[in-house]
Amino acid sequence: MKVLVLGAGQLARMMSLAGAPLNISISAYDVNSDSIVHPLTQQNLGKGLANAIADADVVTAEFEHIPLTVLAQCQQSGKFLPGETAIKAGGDRRLEKQLLDDAGVRSAAYHIVNVEADFNHAITTLGLPLVFKSALAGYDGKGQWRLKRAEDAAEVWQQISAFLAADENQSIVAEQFIPFQREVSLIGARRANGEVKVYPLTENHHVNGVLSVSLAVPGNEQLQQQAQAMFTAVANKLNYVGVLAIEFFDVDGELLVNEIAPRVHNSGHWTQQGADVCQFEQHLRAVCDMPLGNCELVRPSLMVNILGEDKVPEAILSISGVHLHWYGKSKRPGRKMGHINLSAANNSELKARFEQLISLLSPAAFPELQLMANRLN
Amino acid sequence: MKVLVLGAGQLARMMSLAGAPLNISISAYDVNSDSIVHPLTQQNLGKGLANAIADADVVTAEFEHIPLTVLAQCQQSGKFLPGETAIKAGGDRRLEKQLLDDAGVRSAAYHIVNVEADFNHAITTLGLPLVFKSALAGYDGKGQWRLKRAEDAAEVWQQISAFLAADENQSIVAEQFIPFQREVSLIGARRANGEVKVYPLTENHHVNGVLSVSLAVPGNEQLQQQAQAMFTAVANKLNYVGVLAIEFFDVDGELLVNEIAPRVHNSGHWTQQGADVCQFEQHLRAVCDMPLGNCELVRPSLMVNILGEDKVPEAILSISGVHLHWYGKSKRPGRKMGHINLSAANNSELKARFEQLISLLSPAAFPELQLMANRLN
Repeated sequence: MKVLVLGAGQLARMMSLAGAPLNISISAYDVNSDSIVHPLTQQNLGKGLANAIADADVVTAEFEHIPLTVLAQCQQSGKFLPGETAIKAGGDRRLEKQLLDDAGVRSAAYHIVNVEADFNHAITTLGLPLVFKSALAGYDGKGQWRLKRAEDAAEVWQQISAFLAADENQSIVAEQFIPFQREVSLIGARRANGEVKVYPLTENHHVNGVLSVSLAVPGNEQLQQQAQAMFTAVANKLNYVGVLAIEFFDVDGELLVNEIAPRVHNSGHWTQQGADVCQFEQHLRAVCDMPLGNCELVRPSLMVNILGEDKVPEAILSISGVHLHWYGKSKRPGRKMGHINLSAANNSELKARFEQLISLLSPAAFPELQLMANRLN
Repeated sequence: MKVLVLGAGQLARMMSLAGAPLNISISAYDVNSDSIVHPLTQQNLGKGLANAIADADVVTAEFEHIPLTVLAQCQQSGKFLPGETAIKAGGDRRLEKQLLDDAGVRSAAYHIVNVEADFNHAITTLGLPLVFKSALAGYDGKGQWRLKRAEDAAEVWQQISAFLAADENQSIVAEQFIPFQREVSLIGARRANGEVKVYPLTENHHVNGVLSVSLAVPGNEQLQQQAQAMFTAVANKLNYVGVLAIEFFDVDGELLVNEIAPRVHNSGHWTQQGADVCQFEQHLRAVCDMPLGNCELVRPSLMVNILGEDKVPEAILSISGVHLHWYGKSKRPGRKMGHINLSAANNSELKARFEQLISLLSPAAFPELQLMANRLN
């Protein structure tokens, strides 16, 4: 099978590594350079997007911020999975909110803001505090504003209106602030025949809006069922095919969707070591219409993102259960350069190994890890 | 790190997949076409061996039947691990036997046969039955003769002498036939600092001289210690760096070395799913002088070779714990085309999953699997 991935970053790269043993070969469309490359070697394959689509059995995506003309071209081919609607819902918070409403799935109450009257209406109807999120291209904490006190409204509106003025396609979704205890995510897959399989809920810790650690340990069965039901509702609504990630706020055991990502997801990287079949293989199985793999937790596992660093102490490889995954990218401050997976036979062994790992990593480059270690008991 | 592998087959390919996450990039020397290729894409990298050696940080090998001039050229570079002596010992049964004697490690009594007098001397001193094995390029059961009865000696000698006459470098090692109960193998790694780590002993079942199934389950600790001691003696004798495989005959709980392979080995493929760090990553860690990974058995596992087939029923992917590994090769009768790994939480679950797998595979293409399933209790 030949799969073309829109996007040539680490997710396409890891799909390539996961696909090779299944004789699934991956080529990737680099949106920035408008070229088709091998996602592992980055070799330019010397063909245009139209030829690459024609050559592929399946077209899929590793990210959702893709030019609409490209999405339309892929959709036209009849090979695009999960398809234009799903990718757009992941890339536009207005469509995402509408989707969640249509699927009957809980998320924060919201109001679309384009002009000052909308802004004021949001404050009146939803109350404070509010979070304002850009509708397009907002991720990793960018394009977000918080409004806690009414007296700051003018200043926040000034920032938002300047932001809106800079891009006529942009819009803002105002959301009620959710006083959540934890952020969790569910990664799962749906096949064309409607079969759905989901991994265990993962607890995520962000630093400055960017994912730092994901933790996958045996969890609360009631919460898992709740998440799975919401996942299935969204996936079915989209007639989704492939891996889908849903981020939730956990509010006293009640889940609200924060956002969806119509693709493999950073918070699912632990599946490379902690599950039978990793999310990258699972996505390929789904879009190639092969049987989905087992999603059970094989071993308690966690993942630590490597941000802006191109080296870690080699000694971490001596820790049992450590797996290092570099993305082969050049160093840039804050850039996702790789991740460390850690697995163990049980929670207490995972905690001990995590403490060992933390002791070897620079606290400046890897802040707040101890917070997550403390969750393991 | 850049690693050049002598040989561009499935072992180099799987090294490439295992190396990518560590930012180790692999190029491969295809001995047949005398070209340097990417072992995953098979793309010709358009440079000669000398340039490839110069570009590499480390040179290693995926097989031992390599022209001596190539070995010398690699050795000369000072980058070759495990190095010329080890590769030669793996490729020439005379050197291998000498090595085992020098390391003080038990193997079948033997005699080198070049002329008829040697042949007769072997019969007289070692007794019948005897196994005659070609010194060079003999593997997967090729270049072997058995002599059970004295009256067949003339006919066997006729075959052997014709074989010897065809190649002036060839020789024969006559070995006492070992009435073994099982064949087991030990895969392990040694680092330049002398650190040795070995995986659990693997039980192997061959059909027509070719490996069919390898089984890695919690085993006999005494046997494991015995194998590890012999492994360490051989590896130390060679000042070995990298992954080394040793095949043993198990004779009532006493191990005799059958043969060694100075490389990653087919009977270690289960480590891709059954161990923390697979043999391919472990080899790269060793030759790149990185810390060795944990070798413990994470889950009882087995591997089934796919020989001469380029398809298996897709339904096997529905079985939990199944991992399919294709090598991207074109179909040829008997050719190693891929393998299936199977893992489970315990032996009885592994047995149940194996029975499921067997029920889906063609008995003609996958003979004698049930024999190994019966070993799981």
